[in-house]
This record gives sequence, C-alpha cells and structure tokens, in this order.
Amino acid sequence: MRFAIYLPPQASEQEKVPVLYWLSGLTCTDENFMQKAGAFKLASELGIAIVAPDTSPRGDEVADDESYDLGQGAGFYVNATEAPWNEHYKMYDYVVDELPALIQSTFPVNNKRAIAGHSMGGHGALIIALRNPSIYSSVSAFSPICNPMKCSWGQKAFTEYLGKSKTKWKEYDASELMRHSKDVIPVKVDQGESDDFLVEQLKPEALVAASKHSNYPLELNIHNGYDHSYYFISSFIEDHLRFHSAHLNR
Amino acid sequence: MRFAIYLPPQASEQEKVPVLYWLSGLTCTDENFMQKAGAFKLASELGIAIVAPDTSPRGDEVADDESYDLGQGAGFYVNATEAPWNEHYKMYDYVVDELPALIQSTFPVNNKRAIAGHSMGGHGALIIALRNPSIYSSVSAFSPICNPMKCSWGQKAFTEYLGKSKTKWKEYDASELMRHSKDVIPVKVDQGESDDFLVEQLKPEALVAASKHSNYPLELNIHNGYDHSYYFISSFIEDHLRFHSAHLNR
Repeated sequence: MRFAIYLPPQASEQEKVPVLYWLSGLTCTDENFMQKAGAFKLASELGIAIVAPDTSPRGDEVADDESYDLGQGAGFYVNATEAPWNEHYKMYDYVVDELPALIQSTFPVNNKRAIAGHSMGGHGALIIALRNPSIYSSVSAFSPICNPMKCSWGQKAFTEYLGKSKTKWKEYDASELMRHSKDVIPVKVDQGESDDFLVEQLKPEALVAASKHSNYPLELNIHNGYDHSYYFISSFIEDHLRFHSAHLNR
Repeated sequence: MRFAIYLPPQASEQEKVPVLYWLSGLTCTDENFMQKAGAFKLASELGIAIVAPDTSPRGDEVADDESYDLGQGAGFYVNATEAPWNEHYKMYDYVVDELPALIQSTFPVNNKRAIAGHSMGGHGALIIALRNPSIYSSVSAFSPICNPMKCSWGQKAFTEYLGKSKTKWKEYDASELMRHSKDVIPVKVDQGESDDFLVEQLKPEALVAASKHSNYPLELNIHNGYDHSYYFISSFIEDHLRFHSAHLNR
C-alpha cells in the first residue's frame, strides 16, 4: 500500500501535530490531492499533517477489473467479503486501523484525527467518521457519494465487494448511517451545482433527509458554477482545513 | 494550438486586466500549471489573468520524436528553421505575437503583459522577455535552463530545430542575451538546490556571470531542499505573482 504524507514545519518529537486523512475518488492515487489541492500553505500555518492513502490495493497479484469504477483505483473504502476481492480489498480496516498505526509509530503526530475526501473518498470519509465518532474530531467531504445503495457506482461496487445482501451495504452508506446515528461529530459537505455526477451518483438530498430524520447537524453548501474537479476542491480547501483545525485543537 | 486561461473575477469590458503568460517545461501541456501551481487564489485577489500555452504544436501531422526532450511537448520556444520541424514549430512567434493577439481580441484583458515559466519554460520566458523588453513589464522563472547552448537538452534541441550554426543559437540563449542586453526589465529567478537537473542542465551560474558582465539587475534565489517539481513552484508562486503585479500595475 502506498500513501503520501505532508508534514508541517512545526512537527517534531517536542510538538506532535494532528492528522487530517484525505480519501480520494475513483481512478485517483495517493498523489492527486497532494499535487492539485493547494492545501500545504494553510496546513503549514495551522500545523496539520495530511495523509493521503491510495484508493485501493495495487499490483499484478491484486484482483482488478477493466472498468474504472471497480477494482484497482476503486476500493470504495469497504472490507470486501466476496471473491476475488476479499483477498486484498480491506480499505476500511486499512484507513481506520492499519494506516494510522503506521503513521503514529513513524512520524511526529499525536492521536488527534480528522478525515475528509472527494467523491468516492467523500463517501469513505463520511462512513468512517459516522461509524467511529470517538476517533475522529470532524469530517468533511467534497462532492461525496451520499447514498451509494441508490446509485449505479455504489450498487455495482457493493454487489461485487459485499454480495447481494443489502444488510451489509447499510454499514457503508452515509445516508443510512446518519439516519440512525446517535453520537454526533461535526460534518461539513460542499457540492458543486454544475457537477455532472450530482443527480445520478452523488444525491446529497439523501444525506439531508437523513440528517433531518435523526436531527443530525449537517453543514451542506451548494456552490453555483462549480464542477466535480480538483479546481472545486482547491477553491474551498482552506475552509475545510480551518473547519478541521478548529475541532482538532479543541 | 491549445491554451488554458484563468480569468480573475474582476475581468470585464469595464475593467480589463493584465496578463501573465506562463510557459511550461518538457513533457508538459497547457494543463500542468493550472492544475498544480495553486496560483488562482492570489491571482483573483491581484486581478491578473494567467494564460498557459501548450509546449509545442500537436497532432498526427506534426513532426515528432520518440524522446521526451524533442518534438511534441518540447518546442523550446524557438522558431525552427530545419526540416522537418520548420513546418509547424514556431513557438517563439506563437507566444510573442499570435497568442497575445488572440487573447486580447477574445477576452477582457488590457495590453500589459508579464511572462514566467519553469525549466524549458523558464528558458522561454527569459529569452522572450530579454528580446522584447518593451512588451513585457517583468519576467520570472523557476529552475530555468539558463544556458541551453552549453547543456545537452539545449544542444540537442537547437541542433535539430536551428541547425549547427551557433550564431542562431545565441538568439535563444538567456545567458548570451543577458550578456549583451542594454534595455533592462525586472528579472526574478528561483532555483531549488536539490534539483537533479541543476548542475548538468540548468546552470544558473552562467546567468549570474552574464548579469555581472552587462551589469544587468538579476534577482536569483537558491532554496535549500527544493527539487525540480511543481511542489517547488507552488511553494513560491505567490512571490512571483506579487512581483509581476507590482510591475504590471506601475
């Protein structure tokens, strides 16, 4: 497994810094956010480390598929139970347990964690935070897949990775999780109104309905004229960093 | 020919804005700077448009070479005189004349221009500004090829594009041009000290020697620990934007 890390200049054994985990979207690697988001300047001022894992296991011996939305580059942040995926695709455990253990034992970081992501990674950030509200101080997402059980990206991936029973799917669906959540952490979502995937795949209205059902606080901002690209992320990443910094340092 | 343009929110027929032309390096297209430099936030505050041309003509009918440092993606900002390159490779004229004419007739920009670039594009920015000091208000470069006549990248490209006579080469060599320049414009160069190409290809010491010879003012900053990548550019791009803004608005 590959990951990228940004360490701010403050980070030292004397001053361990908190970590924002960033989860990327379909077809991405550990590099996209680091190269395109423009996050380092403010992260260096705020004293936040950023860790970006790859979006799936990789390699010749790892199961794959010809399509861009399944297999390598498309791990969907689940623990696969179905063959052939269940041999290597354990992205949920990797992001929640394995990677943070490695980061905390290798770099001068403390145990404070926030999580964020984009598209498939926004889905990953939301489900991971909603399932582990005591571990993460805050969660944010750009253009997340809010209700994967009800869109073609999610249905395809969940069928392959988790099988046909929808009971398991609910554990990895942000709208389902928020609908039944009791422990609350701060959630911030930004969505471009000119995003080509908005209606068919992302469905923020499902997250809004869930938040109303469980009275879960949700900050959702719709931005006119913005699409699904990293230009959208780079335009608002500073808002997300300040949001996480406020909660990480509380 | 493809190009990318960033227009700041101020730009309108009532408020035409100045333009910074950005020239990219070997293997790049019109997209690299726009995706990776993190320049838009400050450009929007300063009210500067940014135009990034591709690094060469493209297409099946355009001459090319298997190597990364010749042909498509490697135009070197010269007007080629040798076959087969002389049919399409006129990047100098394109950047100095054709593209600005198109930009000024299509977008709400005024006739104030600055120019900057990286590596091969830093070379391009320097030679274009040094040869046209009345057109450009300032020039800056990250990690430029300062003396292409004396490095393998430049010697290979100039031999192919311009032929073996070094008289023509001197018209496209920043150190040669600066050595004999009379009209002065502000020049800012940043160079990473951990750049793998520094010694063999970039040779900022030649530019320093030229500036001393002709008493040409040159701001050259060497940065410990920085390499040849866009991470270096994104770390210092704001300094360059402020530098150009000060001269564009004079």
